[in-house]
Parts: sequence; C-alpha cells; structure tokens
Amino acid sequence: MIDGCPAGIPLDESLIQRELDRRKPGSSVASTPRTEPDRAIILSGVFEGRTTGCPISIQIANQDARSASYSPTAHLFRPGHGDITYEAKYGIRDWRGGGRASARETAARVAAGAIAKAILQQEGIHIRAWTIALAGIRAKHIDPQAVFQNPFCCPDEEAAVEMAERIASIRAKGNSAGGIVEIVATGVPRGLGEPVFDKLDADIAHALMGIGAVKGVEIGSGFAAADMLGSEHNDPITPKGFLSNHAGGILAGISNGDDIVIRVAVKPIPSISLPQQTIDREGNPAEIRVGGRHDVSAIPRINPVCEAMVALVLTDHLLRWKAIRP
Amino acid sequence: MIDGCPAGIPLDESLIQRELDRRKPGSSVASTPRTEPDRAIILSGVFEGRTTGCPISIQIANQDARSASYSPTAHLFRPGHGDITYEAKYGIRDWRGGGRASARETAARVAAGAIAKAILQQEGIHIRAWTIALAGIRAKHIDPQAVFQNPFCCPDEEAAVEMAERIASIRAKGNSAGGIVEIVATGVPRGLGEPVFDKLDADIAHALMGIGAVKGVEIGSGFAAADMLGSEHNDPITPKGFLSNHAGGILAGISNGDDIVIRVAVKPIPSISLPQQTIDREGNPAEIRVGGRHDVSAIPRINPVCEAMVALVLTDHLLRWKAIRP
Amino acid sequence: MIDGCPAGIPLDESLIQRELDRRKPGSSVASTPRTEPDRAIILSGVFEGRTTGCPISIQIANQDARSASYSPTAHLFRPGHGDITYEAKYGIRDWRGGGRASARETAARVAAGAIAKAILQQEGIHIRAWTIALAGIRAKHIDPQAVFQNPFCCPDEEAAVEMAERIASIRAKGNSAGGIVEIVATGVPRGLGEPVFDKLDADIAHALMGIGAVKGVEIGSGFAAADMLGSEHNDPITPKGFLSNHAGGILAGISNGDDIVIRVAVKPIPSISLPQQTIDREGNPAEIRVGGRHDVSAIPRINPVCEAMVALVLTDHLLRWKAIRP
Amino acid sequence: MIDGCPAGIPLDESLIQRELDRRKPGSSVASTPRTEPDRAIILSGVFEGRTTGCPISIQIANQDARSASYSPTAHLFRPGHGDITYEAKYGIRDWRGGGRASARETAARVAAGAIAKAILQQEGIHIRAWTIALAGIRAKHIDPQAVFQNPFCCPDEEAAVEMAERIASIRAKGNSAGGIVEIVATGVPRGLGEPVFDKLDADIAHALMGIGAVKGVEIGSGFAAADMLGSEHNDPITPKGFLSNHAGGILAGISNGDDIVIRVAVKPIPSISLPQQTIDREGNPAEIRVGGRHDVSAIPRINPVCEAMVALVLTDHLLRWKAIRP
Repeated sequence: MIDGCPAGIPLDESLIQRELDRRKPGSSVASTPRTEPDRAIILSGVFEGRTTGCPISIQIANQDARSASYSPTAHLFRPGHGDITYEAKYGIRDWRGGGRASARETAARVAAGAIAKAILQQEGIHIRAWTIALAGIRAKHIDPQAVFQNPFCCPDEEAAVEMAERIASIRAKGNSAGGIVEIVATGVPRGLGEPVFDKLDADIAHALMGIGAVKGVEIGSGFAAADMLGSEHNDPITPKGFLSNHAGGILAGISNGDDIVIRVAVKPIPSISLPQQTIDREGNPAEIRVGGRHDVSAIPRINPVCEAMVALVLTDHLLRWKAIRP
Repeated sequence: MIDGCPAGIPLDESLIQRELDRRKPGSSVASTPRTEPDRAIILSGVFEGRTTGCPISIQIANQDARSASYSPTAHLFRPGHGDITYEAKYGIRDWRGGGRASARETAARVAAGAIAKAILQQEGIHIRAWTIALAGIRAKHIDPQAVFQNPFCCPDEEAAVEMAERIASIRAKGNSAGGIVEIVATGVPRGLGEPVFDKLDADIAHALMGIGAVKGVEIGSGFAAADMLGSEHNDPITPKGFLSNHAGGILAGISNGDDIVIRVAVKPIPSISLPQQTIDREGNPAEIRVGGRHDVSAIPRINPVCEAMVALVLTDHLLRWKAIRP
Repeated sequence: MIDGCPAGIPLDESLIQRELDRRKPGSSVASTPRTEPDRAIILSGVFEGRTTGCPISIQIANQDARSASYSPTAHLFRPGHGDITYEAKYGIRDWRGGGRASARETAARVAAGAIAKAILQQEGIHIRAWTIALAGIRAKHIDPQAVFQNPFCCPDEEAAVEMAERIASIRAKGNSAGGIVEIVATGVPRGLGEPVFDKLDADIAHALMGIGAVKGVEIGSGFAAADMLGSEHNDPITPKGFLSNHAGGILAGISNGDDIVIRVAVKPIPSISLPQQTIDREGNPAEIRVGGRHDVSAIPRINPVCEAMVALVLTDHLLRWKAIRP
Repeated sequence: MIDGCPAGIPLDESLIQRELDRRKPGSSVASTPRTEPDRAIILSGVFEGRTTGCPISIQIANQDARSASYSPTAHLFRPGHGDITYEAKYGIRDWRGGGRASARETAARVAAGAIAKAILQQEGIHIRAWTIALAGIRAKHIDPQAVFQNPFCCPDEEAAVEMAERIASIRAKGNSAGGIVEIVATGVPRGLGEPVFDKLDADIAHALMGIGAVKGVEIGSGFAAADMLGSEHNDPITPKGFLSNHAGGILAGISNGDDIVIRVAVKPIPSISLPQQTIDREGNPAEIRVGGRHDVSAIPRINPVCEAMVALVLTDHLLRWKAIRP
C-alpha cells in the first residue's frame, strides 16, 4: 500500500514486474530453486495507465509457499532468525514461512520502489546497486557494464569468477555467506534532506538498516573516514564541482549534487542445513538443521531491495523539497 | 523541547547538566579552548522535581559565540561543511556559528538524552560509549574502567597514550582526525522494536547517522559480517542465553535481550586551518583557511551524543512496547 | 491495512463481518437495493485465531460494482461530490463508482473499527451510535433498546414512525435527506488523551469529520454551550462522579471517566435523480441527473462507521496511555 | 517551536506581536485586567529578516503570573477544568496558572499562526474570524467592517450593543458566557486536502477542537444540513462558480475554491466566582469559588486563536499540495 504518490505518473504492472523479477527466487546461482512468480497486481490508485493520487494497492500473492517444510522446527528457535524475539515480543509466532520477518517481505519494498523509481526517472535521478564483496571476495574495480554479465551483479568480472567458485563450495557444505552491496544514486539535485530530524543520510540509513539481513550502512568514506585526516577527507570545491566524493553526496544531511554513494553490510543467510545449537519454546537445549529451500547468500537478490529503499527515501525528500523550494 | 515523557520521572537540571558537561568544549585534549558553560535551564514540564507529563522545554543559551570570527569566510563555502547545501536548499544561510548545521546543535540531543537515560535507568537499562579508534590508532581490547582514565574515553590505556601523541601532532599541523565510537546498551529486555517500519536497528541507524560527523553505523558484526559464513555468524542459543553476539542484540528488528552493540564511524572535523580549495557564493575559485576555535576531533565530545541518541531510541521503543505488551 | 494492533487479540472474520453487515447496502429502508456481500477476508496478521502483532490486512472486494452506470456522467461534475475537487487536485479522476471519494471507502473503516472494538471490549469500553434526527424529524428521548426495533436505528419509536413516512416521501421524489447521529462511549477510563497536540476531543473530531458526509461534530453540550452560563455548563463534581455531563466525558482534552457523548451532522446524500445545474470538464453549463442506485440518506448505514471511527481513536489513546501510565 | 517553515519568508517580531496583541488580556471588555505584555522574542530560524528554513523558536515569557492566587484551590478540582483529568492521567498536577491546560497556551498557537498567515498572504489567502453569537445574543447579519468597531468583534453592530449589556450583567454576577465564532478563509485555491486520512475538513476540525474551550466545529451548512434535502444542500455549479456554499468550501475533503466557512461553539469560561460543588484530591466533597482574574468569555480573545489554527492547517496543506501538483 503506497500513499502520497503524485497523480499522473505512468504506471502499469509490467514496470513493477520488471523490478520484482530481479529479486525473485532462482534469478541467480546464489538463490533457491523455488519458482514463485511474484506476480504484482495493482488493485487501486491507477486509472487509464496513470496514478490517480489515491493510495496505490499492490498485491503479490504467495504461490509456492510450503508451510509444511517449516513445521518440523515450529517449536525451535532458529539461530540468527527473529523466532526468539517475535516469541518474546508477541507471545505468539506464525512459524510458517512468508511471514513478517521473512525475506519475502522485501518483495513489497521492491514493488513500492519501482514506483519511486518512475518518479525519480522523470527528474533524471537513477539508482544502481552492485555487489562489491561476496563470501570474502572483493571487487577490485567498478565496471558498471560488468554488473549485467555475471550472476552476482558484481562490477568486476574477475572477482565474479572467484565468487562463483566460493559460493559453489559454500553451498555444497550447506553453509551460507555474507557480502557488501554498494548503491549509487546519480542525478540527485542539491537540496534534498532536512536540517535536523530527517537528514537525508539518516533516512537512508534507516531505510537500509531496516532490510532484514543488513548489519551496517556507510555513506561516502564511511568507516574509512576513521583513519583519515581532515585535509584528506574534505572534498575540495571547484567551479566545476567537487574534486573527490568522501561526503558520498551528502553534506550536513542535505544532498550536495554529487553522486550519493552508500554501502551496506549483508550478513550470511541464517538458514543453513548444518547442525546448530538452540533451545525449544520451553527453553530446553536442542539441535536444529534448517531445512527448506534457502539461498546461499542474500546477495544479489537483495540488490534491487537496496535500490528500492534508496529510491523511496529520495522520492520522499524530492516531494518535501518541492513543497518548500522558493 | 521533549514531548511524550511520562509523568513522575525525577528530574532536575543537575541531571541534565552532568551529561552536558561531558560534551562541553575544553573537556578533552582533543577539544577547543572555548569556555561555553552550556548551562541547561528547564522552562516547563517539571513540577516539584518530577516530570508532569507535559512537554519539557530546556534552554541552553549560547554564551561564548563569536560570530565575528566567522565573517571573513561568510562568502565562501567551507569544504566538508553544509554551507553549500544550505545555500542550495534555502537560498539563505546563517553563516554565524552555532547554527542548525553546527555541532553545537548536539547539546540539545544530549539534554534530551539525559531524560531518556533517567527513564531507562528505572528499567535497569544502561548505555555507555567509548572510543575504539582515533586518528588511526585502534583500541586492542575493551576495559570499561579505562574509559575514565584518559582524555579520549578509550577503553585501552596503551592505545590512549598513542592517541595522545598522534592528536598532538595533528593539532600542531592544523589538521584534524576521525575515529570510531562503540556504544553498548546493557539490560535491554527482549521485545523492543517493530516488525517492519520502525525496526530497532533501523531507528538506531537513523538516530546515529543523523549526528553531524557520522559516516557509518554498524550493529553487532557489522561490516565484518560480509566475510563470515552463516555457521560462524549465527549466535548459538542455549538455555543461559546466546553464546556469541554477532547480532549485536537485535534479531529481525527486535531486541533479543543481549547487549546492544553499535559502532559509528566519525569523520575528521572539517574545520582545519590548512589552506583548502573552494569557491565563493558567486562560483569563483578561492582558497580558504578556516579560523575560529575548532576541535581536532569530534571524539570524545561526540561520545555522550551517541549515548543520548541511543537512549532516545530505546526509550521510544520501551514506551511503545509498554503500550502493547500482553 | 491495520498496523500497531497488539498481539493475542482473538479475531476472526465473523467478528469483522458482523460489523460490515450493519453498513451493507439494503440493510435499511433508507438504503439502496444493491446486494454487495461486503465479505471481509483476513490476509495477514492473524494466526490460529489471534492477532500476531504484525500488520493485519483485510480485503473487501467490490462484487456488485456497475461502472457502466457512472459513464453517462463521467464528463460532468456531480454537485455535492468530490468530482470537481479531485479533477482540480489531481488532473485525473477515476469516474467509476467505488473510488476513494465513494462512501464505499467506509467499509474499510468499519472493518478496522471491528478490531478496535474487540480491544476496547477487553477493557469494558463499549460504543453505540443512534439516529437522533433524520429528514427533519428529531428523537424526543433516548431509549437504547428502541434502536434495534426500527430500520433507522432511532432510539425513539414514535420518531422512527415519522421518519419512515418522511423518508418514503423523499425517496418518491428522487430527493435525499440529512440527519444527526449521536455516538456514546461508555466505560472509558479517566486519562485518555494528550495535553496539547492530540487531545482526545480533537482526535475524535478529526476522525468523524473525515467521514464523507459529515459537516459538523460536537461533544457534550456542543453548540448549545454557546447559550449557557458557566454556572450552568460546569459539571458539579461529587464523590460519586459528575452530576451532569456537559463536558461530554472530556476535560482539557483528556477523558474524565464519564460517558463520551458526540453528535455528528450528516448532510443529505448528494446523488439525487432530480435535475441539477452543473458544468462539464470543459467548463460548459450542463444539466445532470445522477442515476445509479443511491441511498436516500447516509443514515443509518453511517452509524457503524461513526462507531468505528470513535473506536479507532479510543484504541489509539488507550495504547498511548498504557505506554506512559505510572 | 515551528518546524518545516519554508525559507525566505519575511518575518520579524512585530508581525507576530500584532497577532498576539489581539488575544492579550485586557484587549476587550470581556477580558481580564491582567497586563501581560505577551512579548514575542524570536530565538532562532530567522536571519536578516527572513526565515532560514530551520526551526523557528519563539519565546513568550509569563510576566504577570500570580501563582499565589491559585494556591488556595490547589487541593480542589475546579469544575469544568482539566484538574481532575490531569491528576488522573499523570498523578501529578502543576496547579499554578499558565500551565499546559491554561488558555495561556493559546499564545503559542497565535504566534505560530502569524507565520502561517504570512505564508498564506503570499498566495492571496486571508483568514478572518468574527463573533456570531455571545451570551445568547446572535448576530443577525455579517458586516465585516463592523467587526473592528466593537469590543466583541461582532459583525453586527446592533447585536454588539446587546452583547455589551448582557456581558456586563453576567460579569456583575460573577458568572461567564459562551458563544459562537465564525472563521472564513478566502482565496483558497482548489486542491488542498488529502483524499482519506488528512481531509482538509478533518484537519480543520482537529485543529479547532483542540482549542481549550471549543465544544463543536461545523463547516458550511454544518448542523443545519441535518434538516436539508439533497436538492437544497447541493451547491449548483456554473461556469462562474458555485451558486451557494453549503459545502463551506470543501468537497470530499479537498478545497473547492470557494470560501472556507467554519463555525465553532465556545463554552463559557469555567472559572467563575460563584460557589460550585466539587471534591478535593482525597475525594471529599467541597465547595469552591474560583478566584484569580478570569475573563467573562473566551470570546473574542479566542478569535485570533481560531484564525491561527485554520492558518496552520491551510499552510500545511498548501505545502503538501506544492509537493505533488503536476
């Protein structure tokens, strides 16, 4: 359910579908063999191919859920999952797959992000995500074209080859792997972001840290800033723009016109078939092997989710900016 | 102005003052010789030493501002500062110090955080921040007692000695330095955080990334998760609790009862007296040396600010949790 | 989509259906012969008969929409409708029935209200609405039992007989009628409401004025207060409670423990088959007769909508109060 | 504290002061002899006479508070006041005057409204309030010029004479009186308001019902709509505009370009010097006479407060509309 979308934006289901297809299971070698079509149906808010300004309701039904495969572990807390926190918070837990704490929830984010991207595109703003680390392998350089030429969406072809080997080996052992996604937004005008309570970088961090597997968010220089001197970190300003981009496109919470560059740390998928130590609902020690069909890594299916979240934040701030710009 | 604070919390100005004194200028060797007393005055919301449930208004007047020292550079954009983005967004810029984009704004965060801490303390929740990296020097181990015994709030005495040398050298050159602060919240019950839109980790990332100098936020394993396997990263669960804490105390957006562990990357103070390349308001190239009295590093004055932001987020979620817990 | 509902509330579709049936077309002599079953299907947020704390998604499909009956007037602005304002605001208008400005939208309010009522019931809070005026006929007294014994939900049997005659006559002429609904909430504890920004009466006014046909909201004495003296209006306080209830159960924005009494003015249904003066989308003068199947009065189908909106506001404030009560 | 104000709005203290002077004590024959200057001081958000886009902080200090005059009744609940609800909600009550439940709080609303009016004025939107009923006397007609020529801000000179007599008599008896204020906004463009959750009329009702003494809000035909037929109530549309304005300028929650017409019912001031029945904090019966210096009626000091609240709502919606208009 997307509220607040301006009227008149050309929108049909294919536009949403294209984005959803990028995150659907089986779309990469790191993903599961499930075949959920993840078909988006627009229920409201669009008339004759354009948004009406009213809330847009999109439905993506679960079509290949197999709750039965979850039942053997319904009474156990899966390590690295929200089972134990949901149980503590709510006293009740829907142990079947596809719930609120499932990665499946990110399909909704991608669908909403597709609309945000359509709005941003009209302003010349584009967002791309790529894999700069996977299973301990780092991309050595960024070639945006390479992203489309390997199943990991890695901008470094050679690194992608190494990733394929490493992932195959990890999969064979029933284990899983983490990585790092970089998101770049180009064409963002100067002036997006609020001075104190909703700084652009704060909202981006909120949006990305809210994706299930993300454990860290950094903008521009990020954690590397810790070891830099002011004279190295400050981006010199020239009549033609900034000479470097340690700011990552954001100064004092407001976009500075440069590319917005963000990196997120993605933890390994917690569902692994190796035996793990846990407890049951009564608190007794137990061993668990998580069955079902699980990805080896959230990357690269998480990449369009990251793009979507950044798109949503930029769109919100674009609209806020339009409200007050002189 | 703090709204939504429960009634009956014991509160007086000294409680707020104690926290403010931890961030005041001159409180550390890395800071400026300014002598702002940063005196907090409670204007409303407290009666006979207890909060009344009505909005609490606290005033902290600027007493040692020297706007004149900013005027020579009023027509230039300081690199690494929000001058250029504020100008772009608003078409008007208050170039005097102490404005909305000034680190001075964090005094308000600390004052509000002091109240949040008072609420959390009643529930046995405590928050501590310490310096684990400064100017390229890393703490090798965490000794919480050591934090009080060196001016950098570093939990490693030996590292603190190295930091002192490094900072002295950087100061002598008119340069500045970045670092990393770790924040740990203990005693947090299971169940704080919302399932989708206001996950606890998302709100923490929002709160911390909204602090001026912060360029990255990570929780638990953070960016190290990128290189880990699922079998390494998942925290085994036992009847006595988790055997490790890669989750950083948060699973699926909800606190899991373990310590919440967060690290933030702090960029070098952008105000340096070395010459820098910039432009003026008309877009002409210029050179700038930023005068005034500036810290060499935002650390450790930023440490209580980080504590305050985490305290505010935890308090919000504590109240939300009270609203719905069975 | 209902977010923020506590976990563990017993909930099934029949509970929602019962409320929806009270507002469905054909349920009263003042309503249309349409036969939409308005069947509620719970898509998420409920597991094994209880809420899970996660967002509750309810779907009520349009099953008897006849868009064709709207097409003859698709290029005309219906007087008293939002056609002209939607066109002005969005530049695009979905002229088919069942849209965002349709009374149909209130089905969602009733469904959400059913859940709110379930929560309130656990606390002994109950909400009732009845018709105290319809088509110029006023109820002379309030007999809560009578409400169930006439098709107008009028608490005065004699007045209901007059209403029946008047409504029949108005229907025969192709016209429509307004009225007044009174809503009473009993069992509300002292302490709900915020001191300034979300006063209980302000939120109730917001909720009720947001229902399509409502043109006025008053609480307790309401507009009669204009002619009263302070000595008459003030409710004397005794150890057993208030001697009168001009306050309508709310003092300074906070519930005082007495019944909350609210009245709303409902305008006549704007869709009438009599000829009316209007313009077309190009601004040319035109005559319109609104076809389709329309109620003679929004009353009494609006009554459960009013109850629902009050229930939602009280539930929100109940949860807020739980968060901060000592 | 006003956040979200666009930058570049000309603003100085005199503009705010002018509005504050309209509500200050002693400004009308119905008001108290207190002589609070209600002096507004802008603390932030304005630079060189224009708003900067940053939060605007305005301070209005209490200068003539006499807390001592409240102390005799500190242990009693004043009928018609929030004493009993504040005590119930918070368990603590600041019994001195000037608190959160005091009419004094409306000074802040007027100050914020002055800024909103400055923004609206740039768009040709103007807001006026006048007294159409006081102490049982009704204005028979509306002469906007007359409003400035009598101390009750009544648009009917003859009614104003009667009001003067009635108020004098009520004051002599130590009693108080209610009335009705009408607020008219002209020049509002078509398109302000949201389709469901923040309808313009809902937000106006929220804003006005949140003023302490208000017990009812109606828009356009208001409660009179209850007795009207659809053929009477619908405003015919012509190429030159609407032929009547029963809608009160709002259709389906969105402004229709006509004048926005609102009326609010104002209850009698609850502080009267006549003896009243009440209880003390322990629940024992007691008699109370409320001393201190109190107005006989909230009208006309409440009139600029009503204008301010409408101005704030219209400004919010104007900014929202700018964000999405094509």
